[in-house]
Amino acid sequence: MADGGMQMRNEDGITAVLGVLKQRFGERFQTGEAIRAQHGHTTTWIANQMPDGVVFAQSTEEVSEIVKTCAAHKVPIIAFGTGTSLEGHVNAPLGGISIDVSQMDKVLEVNAGDLDCRVQPGVTREALNTHLRDQGLFFPIDPGANASIGGMTATRASGTNAVRYGTMKDNVINVEAVMADGSIIRTARRAKKTSAGYDLTRLMVGSEGTLGIITEITLRLQGIPEAMSAARCSFPSVEAAARTVMAVIQYGLPVARIELLDASMVGAVNNYSKLELPVSPMLLLEFHGSDAGVAEQAETFGMLAEEEGGTGYAATKTLEERNKLWQARHDAYWAMLQLRPGCDAVASDVCVPISRLADALTQSEAKATEMGLVAPTVSHAGDGNFHATVLVNMEDAAEVAKAKEFISWLNDMAIGMEGTCTGEHGIGQGKRPYLVRELGAETLAVMGAIKKALDPDNIMNPGKIFM
Amino acid sequence: MADGGMQMRNEDGITAVLGVLKQRFGERFQTGEAIRAQHGHTTTWIANQMPDGVVFAQSTEEVSEIVKTCAAHKVPIIAFGTGTSLEGHVNAPLGGISIDVSQMDKVLEVNAGDLDCRVQPGVTREALNTHLRDQGLFFPIDPGANASIGGMTATRASGTNAVRYGTMKDNVINVEAVMADGSIIRTARRAKKTSAGYDLTRLMVGSEGTLGIITEITLRLQGIPEAMSAARCSFPSVEAAARTVMAVIQYGLPVARIELLDASMVGAVNNYSKLELPVSPMLLLEFHGSDAGVAEQAETFGMLAEEEGGTGYAATKTLEERNKLWQARHDAYWAMLQLRPGCDAVASDVCVPISRLADALTQSEAKATEMGLVAPTVSHAGDGNFHATVLVNMEDAAEVAKAKEFISWLNDMAIGMEGTCTGEHGIGQGKRPYLVRELGAETLAVMGAIKKALDPDNIMNPGKIFM
Repeated sequence: MADGGMQMRNEDGITAVLGVLKQRFGERFQTGEAIRAQHGHTTTWIANQMPDGVVFAQSTEEVSEIVKTCAAHKVPIIAFGTGTSLEGHVNAPLGGISIDVSQMDKVLEVNAGDLDCRVQPGVTREALNTHLRDQGLFFPIDPGANASIGGMTATRASGTNAVRYGTMKDNVINVEAVMADGSIIRTARRAKKTSAGYDLTRLMVGSEGTLGIITEITLRLQGIPEAMSAARCSFPSVEAAARTVMAVIQYGLPVARIELLDASMVGAVNNYSKLELPVSPMLLLEFHGSDAGVAEQAETFGMLAEEEGGTGYAATKTLEERNKLWQARHDAYWAMLQLRPGCDAVASDVCVPISRLADALTQSEAKATEMGLVAPTVSHAGDGNFHATVLVNMEDAAEVAKAKEFISWLNDMAIGMEGTCTGEHGIGQGKRPYLVRELGAETLAVMGAIKKALDPDNIMNPGKIFM
Repeated sequence: MADGGMQMRNEDGITAVLGVLKQRFGERFQTGEAIRAQHGHTTTWIANQMPDGVVFAQSTEEVSEIVKTCAAHKVPIIAFGTGTSLEGHVNAPLGGISIDVSQMDKVLEVNAGDLDCRVQPGVTREALNTHLRDQGLFFPIDPGANASIGGMTATRASGTNAVRYGTMKDNVINVEAVMADGSIIRTARRAKKTSAGYDLTRLMVGSEGTLGIITEITLRLQGIPEAMSAARCSFPSVEAAARTVMAVIQYGLPVARIELLDASMVGAVNNYSKLELPVSPMLLLEFHGSDAGVAEQAETFGMLAEEEGGTGYAATKTLEERNKLWQARHDAYWAMLQLRPGCDAVASDVCVPISRLADALTQSEAKATEMGLVAPTVSHAGDGNFHATVLVNMEDAAEVAKAKEFISWLNDMAIGMEGTCTGEHGIGQGKRPYLVRELGAETLAVMGAIKKALDPDNIMNPGKIFM
């Protein structure tokens, strides 16, 4: 069952499946090394573990057929969207077949009257929003990367807009999924709410491909707000910025985005995006609403920021300026990598109750400094979630060890504050030890029992979530 | 496994457990018929099926001990909060032990800075809000009845505020639960969001006591809005009222409540609550926000209502008036029963995509009239959810048959509109046949596999959800 790490490669099964899929899918089945490597993990420091073959599926029925073929031979199956996961979700530690759903990229229907739509899993976030724009609608979840909706669903993604619009858990109405035996289920119907049995929708959201392959997603949409404005504000310390965020949340101010960048990250962004932001901790905000509502929000924020010593509070004047500021935020990952060219990123993703955020950020900054690590930090501060990303020279074993020690310390600190080791990236391979520390053996046993019941041969993305 | 209806009473096991619990819990274990009947189903037309004994638990550890005792003898366990379920959730078709959690009624902590609190399952909605008021906080989920938080969690309740604040699924951060083997789990930690493994929180929310007994709940809270106002507006038809609601939702107006009462229900409310509302379809609204925001919302609503022929749009002027209006709405169930004294209520709870609501309500009204049934209707219209409640003389077999036929027709209609047979009441005993029609055998098989994995002897609330 949930012990992927202990299993061995099933060589005979894999050989058999490679033959069947080659014959069935022809050019849509690939086994070249370059393409296989590209379908393993390619971001962050986690080693690449490539699948034995990649099949480009074009329909739910094909996914079901592939799963049945793999199930018959007990061969691992890994779903692949865009490969932007940071925790090794698409790796194939036991080999097996990567099902690439990027050709399943249709927006199947948009129900403007119901503010929902149904899409295939390979549709990307940006493609969906381009499709929706004409109808005055948008899909708010924005993890930064132009991820696929299927991958975002499977990892319970969120990002910069979650403070107002929630995470994937809040914005998926139902999914269609192919289970480990090849059966096709739909988890719920299209009503806005339901009490019809177990919440299989939420069980599939965040299951990281370990229970089934998501083949369709029905999403909640939002009307594009009448007015949007962006603003930035600098603070004397990360603590002052975080305290301002806490005040915003307690006040009930419905900010659409409230992002915190530490001084190191602001510097990186300045270099990468050719900006001249003051190099001190900064909040980056977005307000959505009516004209009057947005103005009221901006004014209230200014008042709260002033109490914590916020300076240089400036609203963007133009759409161009707003886009430039948010593009810079989205590029923070790439900007940060430039701080130490050639180094790899060790991602982290802790999330704590908001009352502990100032303390957590302050401790994290102090610890990295004390350890001599470069760890620029960006925070989805309204949710208590932050990413301190350690830049590591992978050739330097001592530095790698220090980075591991820092991440372990950071995760334990968050857990000790009643928080989590992962706010939005998921467990994947990297965080498996922390999941047990966070939730305990009894809770993990319940997850393991569900996994075993629905995937008795452990063929669905083995080696993820569970040790 | 999921075949509670086919199982037999386990007489030997029950006898053994009665002896153990009597000795262990003394006066806190009751077997008198009156108290047992009161712990079976007492609302609506579903027959009362009493448990063999009722134990008043006072701690998680006691619940675990009781579950272990019952598990050792394979005896059914049914959790009991306030007994306000409408679908037979607390019935004991195979006998067994009712665990009454009403003495587990402590608010364990309130974290005002994080807008959350942790409570025991016997805390009622009203008791919680009384506790929170001094701190300027409230818990928004309001199913009408003064239900227990444990019961509301177990049935995925929602109610009048869900259009703005979501359902229990959106407002539970984590639960502590005793599983079928007596083990105690906590499903998540206290961070606002998490991607740490399977979403066991959402699996327990709405599991209707069939997977475990919920012993603690951590809830999201809201700040009491700066301003609140209520309003009502009458319409020439149910369709016009429903179309107005659709316009409100599409507009993105953040109404806190938008309830639709049909003419029959308005008449019943007038009689019961001594009001003089115009006897035609009516929308009842509540706006939350800043002073300016509430005024803006009220004005926008007036504009949208006017386009659909809304008349008599009147905001309440005083807190007393607002409370009176909403009390009348909350008493609608009792008011409606007075339309045919001595009759029982056959509850229904369909929920459809909002674009189909006008059509669904119109068809439901026409069908009831055509069948000669009295079925006053109230709708949480902003969610597409409505309750047509048939008042039935249970002595009249032909009328009972007609009511059954109507409910079956209604559920099928909703399912045919991509909706659900239950927006908020849950499946319980009454809706089990419709769950299969709604989601299909493959999806039910997945739910059944989870049930079997976590409760292999089917002792947790057998005969609910599954046929």
